[in-house]
Amino acid sequence: MANDNITAPRGFLASGVSCGIKKSGKFDLGLLVCPTGANAAAVFTTNKIVSSAVQISRKHIKSRTTSAVIANSGNANACTGRLGLNNAVKMCVETAAHIETNPHKVLVASTGIIGKQLPIDKITKGISKAITKLSASGSAGLDFAKAIMTTDTRPKQAIGQIEISGEKITIAGAVKGAGMIAPNMATTLCFITTDAAISRPLLKSALKTSIGNSLNKLTVDGHQSTNDTAIILASGLAGNRLIVSRCPRFRKFEKMLTEFCDDLARQMALDAEGATRMFKVVVTGAATKSDARKAARAIADYPLVKCAVNGSDPNWGRIICAVGDCGAKLKPEELSCKIGNITVFKNGNPVRFDVKKAGRIISQTQHTITIDLAAGRQSDFCYGCDLSTGYIKINAGYHT
Amino acid sequence: MANDNITAPRGFLASGVSCGIKKSGKFDLGLLVCPTGANAAAVFTTNKIVSSAVQISRKHIKSRTTSAVIANSGNANACTGRLGLNNAVKMCVETAAHIETNPHKVLVASTGIIGKQLPIDKITKGISKAITKLSASGSAGLDFAKAIMTTDTRPKQAIGQIEISGEKITIAGAVKGAGMIAPNMATTLCFITTDAAISRPLLKSALKTSIGNSLNKLTVDGHQSTNDTAIILASGLAGNRLIVSRCPRFRKFEKMLTEFCDDLARQMALDAEGATRMFKVVVTGAATKSDARKAARAIADYPLVKCAVNGSDPNWGRIICAVGDCGAKLKPEELSCKIGNITVFKNGNPVRFDVKKAGRIISQTQHTITIDLAAGRQSDFCYGCDLSTGYIKINAGYHT
Repeated sequence: MANDNITAPRGFLASGVSCGIKKSGKFDLGLLVCPTGANAAAVFTTNKIVSSAVQISRKHIKSRTTSAVIANSGNANACTGRLGLNNAVKMCVETAAHIETNPHKVLVASTGIIGKQLPIDKITKGISKAITKLSASGSAGLDFAKAIMTTDTRPKQAIGQIEISGEKITIAGAVKGAGMIAPNMATTLCFITTDAAISRPLLKSALKTSIGNSLNKLTVDGHQSTNDTAIILASGLAGNRLIVSRCPRFRKFEKMLTEFCDDLARQMALDAEGATRMFKVVVTGAATKSDARKAARAIADYPLVKCAVNGSDPNWGRIICAVGDCGAKLKPEELSCKIGNITVFKNGNPVRFDVKKAGRIISQTQHTITIDLAAGRQSDFCYGCDLSTGYIKINAGYHT
Repeated sequence: MANDNITAPRGFLASGVSCGIKKSGKFDLGLLVCPTGANAAAVFTTNKIVSSAVQISRKHIKSRTTSAVIANSGNANACTGRLGLNNAVKMCVETAAHIETNPHKVLVASTGIIGKQLPIDKITKGISKAITKLSASGSAGLDFAKAIMTTDTRPKQAIGQIEISGEKITIAGAVKGAGMIAPNMATTLCFITTDAAISRPLLKSALKTSIGNSLNKLTVDGHQSTNDTAIILASGLAGNRLIVSRCPRFRKFEKMLTEFCDDLARQMALDAEGATRMFKVVVTGAATKSDARKAARAIADYPLVKCAVNGSDPNWGRIICAVGDCGAKLKPEELSCKIGNITVFKNGNPVRFDVKKAGRIISQTQHTITIDLAAGRQSDFCYGCDLSTGYIKINAGYHT
């Protein structure tokens, strides 16, 4: 496809510029515009401390339609009090003035260091610059994806297409990683565009389900940030009959959106801070869904498991230790564990296995750890990544 | 003091030997004997998966008196099924035969890799060797402390003395670190001796309180192990009148034991895997004690906070982020945070502060982070340590 960026669906313009928030001179301000107005839905962090941008966007998402999203990186505008809130409003007001819309139709997102005031004059000038660069081209979409990056090593984008009632529907978007990431309602900054015609309530429902089964399954370091935001804008320009019920057309759309978000989640795991590889934890035989989720999360978050994955080391004792300590119901004497397709622990007993082969499985870019708790019939999964010396190097000196 | 080791209190003999569990040839088997029989108390891990040693010692602690503790490092004897359980029993039986006592009067503890069977023949020979080396000398006590080490870089011991009803009471002991450590009922392996005359129920009560306010406040990497065990043996040979009630003499004993355990906890934090420094998190203004505990723990466990401490970086935004995400009740607009005595965040607003001075505070061996949640009057604390590249290096290749 010529354009597999956030500008691929009909009806969207984007741009990315450097306005001087980042000292490096890299892109730090992204603008996304839907001139015809889009149906929008969003999910936000459930952290009790939220950024100014999240506070404002939570209000603005209630607007009947949405015209633009303005997003900056390099500064989270969180823990910045009244001034921070005013600055977030100003970003919406400035953007709205340029595209001649109501500020309530502009959503705002920020990511970066917590506790510093935004250089709002630089951002104001940056918005003017971003306006002049707005384009529906693929490269403009890529610029937007670059503008939301923090410690990401590469822009992360995805695209999906399906036919709904004879019309081609496109979904595209960009996401940023790469630390302070853990699943809860929404993770990191994620912007999605689609030309599907779909009502706001159903768009919200599809977004919640999709994020819940993809980005919210990812944990890099166990904490959601103060700024997590996922926004989807639907221009409705694909020409399909408006989706207004949970009909098969809705299911098709929701399925595509979930696959699309799963793609983004895996890209995030593989580009997590210092990560060299990712893994999926599948928990089966749980007494409750919540137990399955808890156990998967405990394994994926456990530093000793993450280090073992980094060392391509089938040290399954650490997996069992994490499961035993997570609070989930389990039968120790029937517990089993697999690394890839190799059984390493069965019915509470260690199993002789080919350690070198297991090591090779772990050394791949992606592998799966499966644990059966032998306590019921529920299951869930989680994505994690290894913990490397790179993570420490990135995060030991980020502030100064 | 000539002897400030676990053999310092009257009535104890100890030894440490190398029996071949560790390939390095380092000490890996420790023996502690109280020939006159001791009142004993213990606390164990609450992990649902427990080592064979924990399963056996939980039974044997019910014996009216205890004569010995046999402990090995280099192998956890956890997740080892029926054979593992038999091996743990055998360690008690062999020890008991040598000192002519009932196996139920012997406690057993193991630490090391999970999922491997013990080399029981080597251990049996090692027990014979340990018996011949038994001594009340300080160096024998030090050998015992060395024999329980895993990734510890140094033996960790402490000693305390007080007078109770005119008699000098001594408490001494040894503990091992250095990973898979998080507070819950008991942490790691910890062996304590005292010559105090104190009833078993009160000894148990004092141990629970002391461990709860010291070792259980420490988190290195967020998970308690399958093997955590803390044991105290009281020979009663100090000559004090038997403590049988919660009288001032008991309070005095309990206070000394708590200070003693706090000393051990700090030594563990400073010798945690890869740690270069430790910190104390104090949470005030919490709605409940549980909220205070949860918030302190969330901060101390958060990899991004631990990395910032490693980098001497006053990146307080990560502290606030962890608190906001931990589920504790808080008032965002009244939240405050201090690093050492420097206020960095007050009533929900960032505060100008001397970043270099704050960095110097963090770069010390120990510093304190204080957070006020502005939601009530409860408080609690937690000990943590930094996360360094050393932790990754130690744990990425431990198994193979």
